Amino acid sequence: MSSTSSEYVQKITKRSEDFAAWYNDVVLGAQLADYSPVRGMMVYRPYGYAIWENIQKLLDARFKATGVVNAYFPLLIPESLLRKEAEHVEGFNPQVAWVTHGGNEELEERLAVRPTSEAIIMQMYSKWVQSYRDLPILINQWNSVVRWELHTRLFLRTAEFLWQEGHTLHASAEEATERTLLMLEVYRSFLEEDLAIPVIPGRKTPSERFPGAAETYTVEALMGDGRALQSATSHDFADHFAKAFDITFLDKDGERKYGYTTSWGLSTRTIGGIIMVHGDDSGLIIPPKVAPIQVVVVPIWRSEEDKQKVLEHIDRIKEVLGDSFRLHIDLSEEKTPGWKFNEWELKGVPVRLEVGPRDVANSAVVLVRRDNRDKSQVPLNDLVVRLQQTLADIQQSLFDRAKQFRDEHTFECESVAQMLEVLDNKRGFIYAGWCGSDECEAAVKEETRATIRVVPLAQPEDPGTCIRCGNKAQVKVYFARAY
Amino acid sequence: MSSTSSEYVQKITKRSEDFAAWYNDVVLGAQLADYSPVRGMMVYRPYGYAIWENIQKLLDARFKATGVVNAYFPLLIPESLLRKEAEHVEGFNPQVAWVTHGGNEELEERLAVRPTSEAIIMQMYSKWVQSYRDLPILINQWNSVVRWELHTRLFLRTAEFLWQEGHTLHASAEEATERTLLMLEVYRSFLEEDLAIPVIPGRKTPSERFPGAAETYTVEALMGDGRALQSATSHDFADHFAKAFDITFLDKDGERKYGYTTSWGLSTRTIGGIIMVHGDDSGLIIPPKVAPIQVVVVPIWRSEEDKQKVLEHIDRIKEVLGDSFRLHIDLSEEKTPGWKFNEWELKGVPVRLEVGPRDVANSAVVLVRRDNRDKSQVPLNDLVVRLQQTLADIQQSLFDRAKQFRDEHTFECESVAQMLEVLDNKRGFIYAGWCGSDECEAAVKEETRATIRVVPLAQPEDPGTCIRCGNKAQVKVYFARAY
Ligand SMILES: [Zn+2]
Ligand SMILES: [Zn+2]
Repeated sequence: MSSTSSEYVQKITKRSEDFAAWYNDVVLGAQLADYSPVRGMMVYRPYGYAIWENIQKLLDARFKATGVVNAYFPLLIPESLLRKEAEHVEGFNPQVAWVTHGGNEELEERLAVRPTSEAIIMQMYSKWVQSYRDLPILINQWNSVVRWELHTRLFLRTAEFLWQEGHTLHASAEEATERTLLMLEVYRSFLEEDLAIPVIPGRKTPSERFPGAAETYTVEALMGDGRALQSATSHDFADHFAKAFDITFLDKDGERKYGYTTSWGLSTRTIGGIIMVHGDDSGLIIPPKVAPIQVVVVPIWRSEEDKQKVLEHIDRIKEVLGDSFRLHIDLSEEKTPGWKFNEWELKGVPVRLEVGPRDVANSAVVLVRRDNRDKSQVPLNDLVVRLQQTLADIQQSLFDRAKQFRDEHTFECESVAQMLEVLDNKRGFIYAGWCGSDECEAAVKEETRATIRVVPLAQPEDPGTCIRCGNKAQVKVYFARAY
Repeated sequence: MSSTSSEYVQKITKRSEDFAAWYNDVVLGAQLADYSPVRGMMVYRPYGYAIWENIQKLLDARFKATGVVNAYFPLLIPESLLRKEAEHVEGFNPQVAWVTHGGNEELEERLAVRPTSEAIIMQMYSKWVQSYRDLPILINQWNSVVRWELHTRLFLRTAEFLWQEGHTLHASAEEATERTLLMLEVYRSFLEEDLAIPVIPGRKTPSERFPGAAETYTVEALMGDGRALQSATSHDFADHFAKAFDITFLDKDGERKYGYTTSWGLSTRTIGGIIMVHGDDSGLIIPPKVAPIQVVVVPIWRSEEDKQKVLEHIDRIKEVLGDSFRLHIDLSEEKTPGWKFNEWELKGVPVRLEVGPRDVANSAVVLVRRDNRDKSQVPLNDLVVRLQQTLADIQQSLFDRAKQFRDEHTFECESVAQMLEVLDNKRGFIYAGWCGSDECEAAVKEETRATIRVVPLAQPEDPGTCIRCGNKAQVKVYFARAY
């Protein structure tokens, strides 16, 4: 929307002034997404969807490296299937969109638009598995799910969202637990290495478990406003679903046994995470590994004569760069270079190359980093190597900066009063002891609106005392207010 | 399902005896897909879905080469939006699945599970477009759609299927028509070059147009039983949707004008096409470019000593091949080599490499082609080049064979009686003149159950006389009974 782009660049609320308004301005202004006429559902615009495509490519490769294959299961799930696992249906029922009519007929049984696919997939696994030789089954699917939400926020909470859901079936409880933890590690490394988002891997407390799970693991990240974002989850179901769906197999020892299942998912929420972890007052900063455009070229000229020279120089740059980078050359003539700088900064392109008459004369370009605005002239001959180095450096710097922010916004507290003081002023993670009781967990939530985000896998020898009751703590946990 | 695989290999009905039964046996036996507990909906199993992933990769690259970008629009569409274009709603209404409840509340307006996305996308375009500078918009989405079907067949007709739908918006009628034809050509080249399926590109008759289209184009293929399959369509909407959704823009001349739109789609039906065009009595034959496994290695040994040597030889083969091919090495020990041959033939893997003690001695492998069963010994040193040549040759041979079959099953007819004779005995395409009247088209359909599949773009100078009324023909067309 070139005709309005000059306006939107200026209309971004400052991040420091109003984080929520800034977030919406950036999402809409950078054309990542838009509201739709369907209540609670959003449109993923091409620039936002391109980030998701890059996420899919990188994460899918990580899945496949662990033996996972993709498949696709029906969108609609008969109510009776959803009801087979008691906790599961109880957890999701209030969020289900129901199909009651097909064509002109009323259905005998209503169908849920999938809120998640355990039920339909487990039903198929019970049909497919006969013997231990059929195990493990390691299937993932990329799709969308619908969960009826009243209070929505672009990318972070919508009535429909895109995600992947992996579902595995194993011959033993140990193997299922191992897979659950393996996928947690896949998410951790993906989030940290590809999205430059530092995360804390660990367990959810029983009260925060996925409906039907024996154990839910999470990778938890801290956003730029000091609130937490659950960035992916991995669930160990033990034999709960296998029993509900009668998934049995003939084991090596000739006995018929129940299988053990897991599921694990990451959604387009993580795009919200990218925005909130890396963005600044000028807009988005997208980590190079998932940036739809890694390098944007902006030409600068005053005279027609210069224009010709600059365009020829850009042709040489194109040739030198080949397809080593995701490159965009902004030749639009109705905008000034200054506007273009603002626009591509808003869109978070990691590197900008400015090409003016002086650069033509020097057979060089001016390279500007989005993350720290460092500017340097680079000879054309060095450009490929310099861009590779710079993109790698930006990727690492974004991670380091986010990690430093998180460390500076993680506070060890010893009382609920101290915790409240931190939450209201400094904001961030509260690292504290917990006795393990539901009562203390619920009381802290009630008093502070902060929940236990994660019980980290890495625990100190002595977890100290419970922040709420003062009794001996079982574990150290991270509390935070969360998205 | 190794425990049952020995059975299913033997249970494939012969293609020549019962084409429909053969088709189902192959789809289920090769584990491409399965029935689900949801009426009319199927499960895409990993092996079938992997074909779709390869189709997506190749077709998506062809789209992007023409400037198309991907996005994602909501799954659910308010009824009022669907009603905006009169023909469109009339065409799809009988097939819509309706969501009437969200969570525990009844919705004020029911929502259609998208049968296609023109309505929701046009609504967004009307919001996004202000000026000619915003045009064209070239967006595609990969998703699933739901169309309530009573009579279903795996891959060919199901209540939910996977597809892509492209939707473009242009400043002029000419540009929209050009895009419609460009995408038709993308489909033609994709189907012929990547899926090895020869197609006839052309128009649909007015009675077979997509609801709301000014012109529908199709690429039509002939299946192995002589029935036709519409393999992709491209629709020119003129300004029909722009008027219904009030999509206007300020043109260069300062006037406000309606836009012109197109849409175009290809679905998982084409996997049915691959099966029915290339398969034989032994099962699938998958064109190398989309085969999930291009090369399967089957070891052969009798003694433990041989086994050791063969496995070492296979390690050398793996090293030589690197990741130049989609390779699978079948080391399972509970099946004989003979069973494996049958199983991988059923699964349509283009090339099999047999590795026995004699091959170890010769530093070679035995290469067997799936399409013609040609067998030859290949020295390890030549293997990469030979495989590249062989896969390219199989790809071409499959196309040539299918084209020859189609040519041999295309009959020029001059009367409906002659046409019936051909349809009942030889089967295939009927190439004949048509006067252009709805009456003749309907009468032929009534009398023969064959429809006009396509009015080919390439027309002879003199189309002769109408096959039904004997008047001067306007065009030559292809009739066929179709899926
Ligand atoms: Zn306590
Ligand atoms: Zn006629």
